[in-house]
Amino acid sequence: MLTLRQIETVVLALRSRHGRKKSDLCICEGLRASRELVARASHLIEGCVLRDDVLLNFSLGIEPFRVPEHWFEKYAPTQNSQGILFLAKRPSESVPTSTIESPFVLALDGVNDPGNLGTILRSLSAAGLSELWLTRGSVDPFSDKAIRAGMGMQFSMKISYFEDLSEMATRAPLFGVTGPMWLTTPHQGPALYDVPDLFDRTVVVMGGEANGIVRPPPDPHWVSLPMPGAEESLNVAQCATVFIFEYVRRLSTQTSQC
Amino acid sequence: MLTLRQIETVVLALRSRHGRKKSDLCICEGLRASRELVARASHLIEGCVLRDDVLLNFSLGIEPFRVPEHWFEKYAPTQNSQGILFLAKRPSESVPTSTIESPFVLALDGVNDPGNLGTILRSLSAAGLSELWLTRGSVDPFSDKAIRAGMGMQFSMKISYFEDLSEMATRAPLFGVTGPMWLTTPHQGPALYDVPDLFDRTVVVMGGEANGIVRPPPDPHWVSLPMPGAEESLNVAQCATVFIFEYVRRLSTQTSQC
Repeated sequence: MLTLRQIETVVLALRSRHGRKKSDLCICEGLRASRELVARASHLIEGCVLRDDVLLNFSLGIEPFRVPEHWFEKYAPTQNSQGILFLAKRPSESVPTSTIESPFVLALDGVNDPGNLGTILRSLSAAGLSELWLTRGSVDPFSDKAIRAGMGMQFSMKISYFEDLSEMATRAPLFGVTGPMWLTTPHQGPALYDVPDLFDRTVVVMGGEANGIVRPPPDPHWVSLPMPGAEESLNVAQCATVFIFEYVRRLSTQTSQC
Repeated sequence: MLTLRQIETVVLALRSRHGRKKSDLCICEGLRASRELVARASHLIEGCVLRDDVLLNFSLGIEPFRVPEHWFEKYAPTQNSQGILFLAKRPSESVPTSTIESPFVLALDGVNDPGNLGTILRSLSAAGLSELWLTRGSVDPFSDKAIRAGMGMQFSMKISYFEDLSEMATRAPLFGVTGPMWLTTPHQGPALYDVPDLFDRTVVVMGGEANGIVRPPPDPHWVSLPMPGAEESLNVAQCATVFIFEYVRRLSTQTSQC
């Protein structure tokens, strides 16, 4: 466990990109994300700071440092802090270590916005999915912004990293992926509603905010989200949510037919 | 048309809530939102300011004031401005004036976040829907934040206002709504996938971020979004997007069967 002085030093260091690259710690701030961290990954916790007026309706598992409001004004990344901040070890970055646990894997290729990544994590979690694959160049899922946006869902997820989509395509079969790697786009390929085995041991890839999927792997399989309206393309978090809940729809329709 | 001096005065006045309440103008900033404003609602434009280095690939329709970068630093609501800002008349707030044009209406009851409202407008637009109903207490769709988040889609939408859900339920049949007003919730009622006439001359209501639908109308019809995972509830923009694209799925499945 860290001392309060050590926590202060780390929190300040994590403000810079350089500091984040060098550190194996991350900041988890806010009530909802903190509750998730405590519930799902308490073994990662290295320290906790709590504003002296904050009452909690869940157990922290460790003794927090109690501090006055101006501590959060000085150290917390957010302006209107909820008065709770954890330092936690970042789960180590690696390729998958075992066969995928979900029926399919959602993968992000070059998604840059921590808010979008966080939103996608919440949608995955709501759908009961626990696997996320990322290519290098995607935003860090353990930045403090991504953790707040994801409400700490990153601590319950199996997040794995690949160099690029070609490496992902090559290695996917090692982890139990037997179906295609589906590349999502607004304009190419069959509509997601018309692909019966879309979620059957497959990977479904979302591209980045600005340009979508820029470097597809060889022999790509495209799948589209039909948009009857004028909009060029949806925000990637909305697009991912539509795909994730198409999976939920199929699951729920199957169940109700049994 | 306004002079540059008048534009400066209005932009500063619109920073305060009081100023926004008193004004019938709104700020439209950014390339994407500006293009939408020019294309869809040029009759609302009262003035345009353009940074002197900005090149456009679309016609403004009016002569802009060319200004140096520090003008945007001083006056623009955003920190990293794209160097284009319009002042436009706000479309007047009213109840619907005619029969609804869409197969169903999406309604928001107490949605507070301009980012969520903007995201929902983009999803509606992508789905080819053009109607949005709001209750008082929902966020202003013509705040500069909502316009940026919605990328100006508010200028192509028919947005109507009601006191509350009870008034909406009472008056809806006057505007061609013959089906129920469906109230969305995480936990009550049939799943959206199991309601065949969900989008058949109906209203589908999303509640606010914090508490959902707090004051349902008499004899409410609830409809739920199934969430097999642990998450308590999705963000309202994600939830709305799932409903909107369930409509797209039915449309696209019907079409492909013809």
